[in-house]
Amino acid sequence: MDREDPATRAHILIEALPYIRQYWGQTFIIKYGGNAMVREDLKSQVMQDIALLHYVGIRPVVVHGGGPEISSLMKQLGMEPSFIGGLRVTDAATMEVVEMVLTGKTNKDIVSRLNRQSVRAIGISGKDDNCIQARKLDSPAGDLGFVGEIVQIKADILRLLVREGYIPVVSSVAIGADGESYNVNADHAAGAIAAELNASKLILLTDVEGVYRDFQDKRSLISEMDVTQAAELIEEGQAERGMIPKLEACMQALQGGVGRAHLIDGRLPHALLIEIFTDSGIGTMIRP
Amino acid sequence: MDREDPATRAHILIEALPYIRQYWGQTFIIKYGGNAMVREDLKSQVMQDIALLHYVGIRPVVVHGGGPEISSLMKQLGMEPSFIGGLRVTDAATMEVVEMVLTGKTNKDIVSRLNRQSVRAIGISGKDDNCIQARKLDSPAGDLGFVGEIVQIKADILRLLVREGYIPVVSSVAIGADGESYNVNADHAAGAIAAELNASKLILLTDVEGVYRDFQDKRSLISEMDVTQAAELIEEGQAERGMIPKLEACMQALQGGVGRAHLIDGRLPHALLIEIFTDSGIGTMIRP
Amino acid sequence: MDREDPATRAHILIEALPYIRQYWGQTFIIKYGGNAMVREDLKSQVMQDIALLHYVGIRPVVVHGGGPEISSLMKQLGMEPSFIGGLRVTDAATMEVVEMVLTGKTNKDIVSRLNRQSVRAIGISGKDDNCIQARKLDSPAGDLGFVGEIVQIKADILRLLVREGYIPVVSSVAIGADGESYNVNADHAAGAIAAELNASKLILLTDVEGVYRDFQDKRSLISEMDVTQAAELIEEGQAERGMIPKLEACMQALQGGVGRAHLIDGRLPHALLIEIFTDSGIGTMIRP
Amino acid sequence: MDREDPATRAHILIEALPYIRQYWGQTFIIKYGGNAMVREDLKSQVMQDIALLHYVGIRPVVVHGGGPEISSLMKQLGMEPSFIGGLRVTDAATMEVVEMVLTGKTNKDIVSRLNRQSVRAIGISGKDDNCIQARKLDSPAGDLGFVGEIVQIKADILRLLVREGYIPVVSSVAIGADGESYNVNADHAAGAIAAELNASKLILLTDVEGVYRDFQDKRSLISEMDVTQAAELIEEGQAERGMIPKLEACMQALQGGVGRAHLIDGRLPHALLIEIFTDSGIGTMIRP
Amino acid sequence: MDREDPATRAHILIEALPYIRQYWGQTFIIKYGGNAMVREDLKSQVMQDIALLHYVGIRPVVVHGGGPEISSLMKQLGMEPSFIGGLRVTDAATMEVVEMVLTGKTNKDIVSRLNRQSVRAIGISGKDDNCIQARKLDSPAGDLGFVGEIVQIKADILRLLVREGYIPVVSSVAIGADGESYNVNADHAAGAIAAELNASKLILLTDVEGVYRDFQDKRSLISEMDVTQAAELIEEGQAERGMIPKLEACMQALQGGVGRAHLIDGRLPHALLIEIFTDSGIGTMIRP
Amino acid sequence: MDREDPATRAHILIEALPYIRQYWGQTFIIKYGGNAMVREDLKSQVMQDIALLHYVGIRPVVVHGGGPEISSLMKQLGMEPSFIGGLRVTDAATMEVVEMVLTGKTNKDIVSRLNRQSVRAIGISGKDDNCIQARKLDSPAGDLGFVGEIVQIKADILRLLVREGYIPVVSSVAIGADGESYNVNADHAAGAIAAELNASKLILLTDVEGVYRDFQDKRSLISEMDVTQAAELIEEGQAERGMIPKLEACMQALQGGVGRAHLIDGRLPHALLIEIFTDSGIGTMIRP
Repeated sequence: MDREDPATRAHILIEALPYIRQYWGQTFIIKYGGNAMVREDLKSQVMQDIALLHYVGIRPVVVHGGGPEISSLMKQLGMEPSFIGGLRVTDAATMEVVEMVLTGKTNKDIVSRLNRQSVRAIGISGKDDNCIQARKLDSPAGDLGFVGEIVQIKADILRLLVREGYIPVVSSVAIGADGESYNVNADHAAGAIAAELNASKLILLTDVEGVYRDFQDKRSLISEMDVTQAAELIEEGQAERGMIPKLEACMQALQGGVGRAHLIDGRLPHALLIEIFTDSGIGTMIRP
Repeated sequence: MDREDPATRAHILIEALPYIRQYWGQTFIIKYGGNAMVREDLKSQVMQDIALLHYVGIRPVVVHGGGPEISSLMKQLGMEPSFIGGLRVTDAATMEVVEMVLTGKTNKDIVSRLNRQSVRAIGISGKDDNCIQARKLDSPAGDLGFVGEIVQIKADILRLLVREGYIPVVSSVAIGADGESYNVNADHAAGAIAAELNASKLILLTDVEGVYRDFQDKRSLISEMDVTQAAELIEEGQAERGMIPKLEACMQALQGGVGRAHLIDGRLPHALLIEIFTDSGIGTMIRP
Repeated sequence: MDREDPATRAHILIEALPYIRQYWGQTFIIKYGGNAMVREDLKSQVMQDIALLHYVGIRPVVVHGGGPEISSLMKQLGMEPSFIGGLRVTDAATMEVVEMVLTGKTNKDIVSRLNRQSVRAIGISGKDDNCIQARKLDSPAGDLGFVGEIVQIKADILRLLVREGYIPVVSSVAIGADGESYNVNADHAAGAIAAELNASKLILLTDVEGVYRDFQDKRSLISEMDVTQAAELIEEGQAERGMIPKLEACMQALQGGVGRAHLIDGRLPHALLIEIFTDSGIGTMIRP
Repeated sequence: MDREDPATRAHILIEALPYIRQYWGQTFIIKYGGNAMVREDLKSQVMQDIALLHYVGIRPVVVHGGGPEISSLMKQLGMEPSFIGGLRVTDAATMEVVEMVLTGKTNKDIVSRLNRQSVRAIGISGKDDNCIQARKLDSPAGDLGFVGEIVQIKADILRLLVREGYIPVVSSVAIGADGESYNVNADHAAGAIAAELNASKLILLTDVEGVYRDFQDKRSLISEMDVTQAAELIEEGQAERGMIPKLEACMQALQGGVGRAHLIDGRLPHALLIEIFTDSGIGTMIRP
Repeated sequence: MDREDPATRAHILIEALPYIRQYWGQTFIIKYGGNAMVREDLKSQVMQDIALLHYVGIRPVVVHGGGPEISSLMKQLGMEPSFIGGLRVTDAATMEVVEMVLTGKTNKDIVSRLNRQSVRAIGISGKDDNCIQARKLDSPAGDLGFVGEIVQIKADILRLLVREGYIPVVSSVAIGADGESYNVNADHAAGAIAAELNASKLILLTDVEGVYRDFQDKRSLISEMDVTQAAELIEEGQAERGMIPKLEACMQALQGGVGRAHLIDGRLPHALLIEIFTDSGIGTMIRP
Repeated sequence: MDREDPATRAHILIEALPYIRQYWGQTFIIKYGGNAMVREDLKSQVMQDIALLHYVGIRPVVVHGGGPEISSLMKQLGMEPSFIGGLRVTDAATMEVVEMVLTGKTNKDIVSRLNRQSVRAIGISGKDDNCIQARKLDSPAGDLGFVGEIVQIKADILRLLVREGYIPVVSSVAIGADGESYNVNADHAAGAIAAELNASKLILLTDVEGVYRDFQDKRSLISEMDVTQAAELIEEGQAERGMIPKLEACMQALQGGVGRAHLIDGRLPHALLIEIFTDSGIGTMIRP
């Protein structure tokens, strides 16, 4: 069989039709991060995937955190990272760096890559129209500075952009009650936005295959579970530390009315398309 | 290479993106006829193709004439076909049969096949809202009865249906000034509708590979020409008789502002998709 | 007194004002059939009546079944009618004839007659956008073939057409779950559409004066009753066989929220206008 | 023939259909005045006529001047009328009386009579939103005080009310550049409003049969003429004095694009309906 | 400090910002009357104030009764005022005078003064579209003639005008069930309109400082109270007679959902602006 | 005279009315920069001023460049500034810093300051929806790296935000044809946006009193000139170097249809309000 054969191509397009039909007009929240935000080939494939989603009638909203560029800039500036209980202490100077990188560099890089795919992307941060509102995270381990937890999503601007055919790209910087910036977890931001926008799907691009029943046993990948099982994984300590905010984000989204949450392996080329347009579910899917 | 391989499938979807992008929001008039309207497997593929066009943002309008069912019903009714200069004489009784088959059988068959693809198709004839207006064709060869030529397209109902997301399916029965029915050539109807709707493309599904420079030489297939060359082919008698109304329809459409006209081989599975979504232009494309 | 006298004419127009006022903006479902669909003079008067309704602000929707043309075409085709318990057995070949006549001939004849009155009529069948959905009628008397009972009305296309100022004309052909055609009773179709569109009135044109308390006593005409009384007439076997589906249609409409149902004598010239715009109630009116 | 006969009534309604069709959606300016504004029976008939126009899809706008009530109130107040060259001198005190009667009594009387016909009438004067703008009439005969000539019509509020289904009733009081009130000729106001609203018809209700070729010869009634002939009538001194502003209003309207102007005899019951809905043109019709 | 100093002016504008922000887009009902409707300087200031409210995004609706002009015209007409229990008996002739003055003079004077401030004011009475519906007031003291009490507000026309950016000016003349005019208390009209329009504020311009706890003690001015306290004031006979309808109007408005009612001293220049845009609450404010 | 006196305050509000009226609904482009973007008190006043403009019906769009923070971050990062002919050479590393500061810090700081004034601000850069499109500036003096000149403004997103009541805040980072970032002059960006949006006013906040006829003579301040005079100032070398891009921006705006351009002294508290809402024109106004 020949991939260059037009008939094959036509067949494959037709086999995508049931999926296109099913998702037409729905809003998908895509948490973009990990290797898919680092490797040049993956970046480019994700942008194509999102453009395709847009053109077949899906309404994607992209939410992102930072990549390695934050640490890199901090190092250049001679700033010493400090941690409490494994969490980075974000003092005012660090917050400034975080915000500049996330909103001034990462966000606009995603935006212009999407625009090159002939879609119309608009980048905003949680400070625009006070879109993501947060308060200081009260950590038992100590004062983490400007690390915030989300209090409310004011999604008017997102709804407007989506309705008018734009693709919003949202950086995970939030605004506090007194106008101060907060660094919020991008997974949490994506989950909260998915719930507020009543999205059909929340999809998190990760650097793992999915969720494991036992994270030390790579053969225990869970391909499908429900929200109760996700909660149990966390409670029972079976979830990897990095997986916890992702599972929490999925749970918040699903409890807020989102149809499905997906944790997929962003290291696979076109992971988004494969997940959405074929029967080959990849990664872990969580039902309400 | 494996067609079942999800990665392959994703790649092929992505390779369709530039075409989807290019045609998004445009109106395509599809003249449906020939074998594609007879063979069960082709019928089903055309319906899938049209549904896919709809779901990736193209606005298809289907125009059709009759297939072998008209002759078959006439024979059952013991009606003798009569011809003048190669054209069927359409007396009142014949016209009644033509209209019943086209509008009551063929049209609704297409409509319900499309609806099974989860699109919303509405079948109309040229008599609805006086959509296709015709007068008696003045043939030098003799009185052809209720064979008409198109005088005007009143496309309001088509514009409404397209704007609201329906797929109009139009049978080539026209209305005369005194309320009488006329049988009009479906290629001409498609061309006139394409011009009036300012369509991007007119695509005619035929039972040949395309247009030949010399219709007796199958190696002389023309893959691309302009409207002047099409006119010359007719004038110089190089065009096959059955190809003439098709070429005329393309010329009328192109002169009326349509972007491209295509004569493609409806006997190929998914000919529409291959023409629209791959580089493999099939058949003959005519530029303005 | 002189009908040609302008003053008389003005008086009569003014006397219609209270009715026009009362019905302005309301939807009326008109079941068209019987002699009014056969006699040329009556046909023409009904079309004028419907046009007038439209122009004085009423929104008419026309529903029709077939007239004698179905039997006539079947006879021409040498098809033998067969009956079970008084109901016509509709095999696949018969269904094809029914559909061709209803949708390809009767429907378009009504449409073009209305259009000649300077309104904008659009003819559809129950297969367009799956507008009338049916299943096989489970008859105790035996297998009736493609005789259907209505399962659901999907009235989107009707609402769109009415809102945009068109007059929909609907033939009583329905679509089954597997795409097969069903012949449904046109009175039932009219009643179901009236209920779904939340019409103000359902008006059935019949070939009798109205409903009789005792159908063998022509002096027992009922000019007004309620839905309970209508049900009793059927239960007690007092209703003529032909009247039963009409009474059932009225009951379904009234139970679905329609304001009034009327059974009027379509053999009277301008029966619609007389019923709607004068105090002379004709035929039988049924209240909820 | 029997006016009470439902069939007759139906026939007469149908005979109005071509007129209803023709005028559907059009704006008519009706200058209301003369006996039709004085005699109780005529008043009531004019209101019915206007309501009927509204309900059959015509958009009426009523413009009126004052009746005998102005002189009556002036007399009660002991004010002495004074005339220069046949025109009433309107000093400030007179203007106040004029405005109170026109806008506070006549206008609201028309409005509430219309509302009793179940239409929604709104009365305004030329001062509302500066709708009728005037300047002092420069009369060669002497200073006439607050008699104005129209400078401009600002028709926004009229367009809004008409579009929303209200019937505007406009009193002929205008606003000057410095906020002073002017008494303007109601015929002129109606003509200027007709031109500004691009009305189809301007209809003036008068107390004469129409325009005479020779106003001293009652047999010389003109049933139709064009705007040039109307101008000649004035220039040649053949027009009655009271007819001059009416002819001028018609000319202004027709030159401003209005389709037809009519001078009809408001003393005839239902003169409006007879003129609009029958072939019996009454009075004088002026073409552009 | 220098009022001409641009910096001062800028500061003062900025100090109004919180109020502008708070009231942006809200509807305010302003009962206009008393000295503010008599003294030329105050009239002009009120018009400026209302124009400013409009331009900073507030939606004002003006309701007014009559001033001394009614009595003055009655005297001119030699009409004897007659009273029963302190209330003016309004016979038909008096009602005619009331209506002419209120609707034909006072209303249009307010309208054209507002229009000179470059806003777009439209004056209506309660008879327009039957906006204020009343019945005869049943007074225990005797027959008061055409003195009415409000039965219903039909606010469609007010909502339309407000939505389209006009300022409605409403005279307190109401319509009875049989089309007769009624004189209704303008305070009551303002309160009822405020409730029906779901206004944020009802503001009554009066000729006193505000409400006194003991109306004989000018030191007992109440600057704020709630609706219960207002009711007690009336019940306990502590309210001045002229204050009673004002308090009732406030109570009706507040019970109908209006946010705040204000009784302010219209004798102060720019009392409206001072009340709305500064912290210096003047007069009496009543909470729900 | 007492600024705290409510009457004074009311007077001053009323004196702003003619200006509010004049500018209602108009779009103003405000180039924000200089000391007004540095000093904390001025920052806060500018935000209040812009919020007030918004609330009195003006539609402000804010355009900004960078302040001293760019240099400060470069210094922290050990980057050596390099200049050619007085212009900073912007290599890729510098461009990254510029973009991070402008879009990630300055822009969001403005946005959240505005939002604290209860308006709804959205910050974008020229990369969002390819809003500001630029190409490499071809400098005669040498290669300046990523310094760009504006090629086109695609203002859709700005029009959308303005129409929906948001205040767009635009950073002067542009997108090149190959997706690279360019640093464009913020004055030029403001001028080009003003022209594209058909703004009424372009207002540049500067750190000087205005334009001088002879920039070495502080007594030669020009309070008003036209576009020809502005061109002459540049040609004749009379304009200060820093003033040249500002004058060019004004000229481009005025030639593109903007009504007035203003160069005002941003060091004055509330300079915007003083310029817009008082007769005290400050700085230099340029007419077309």
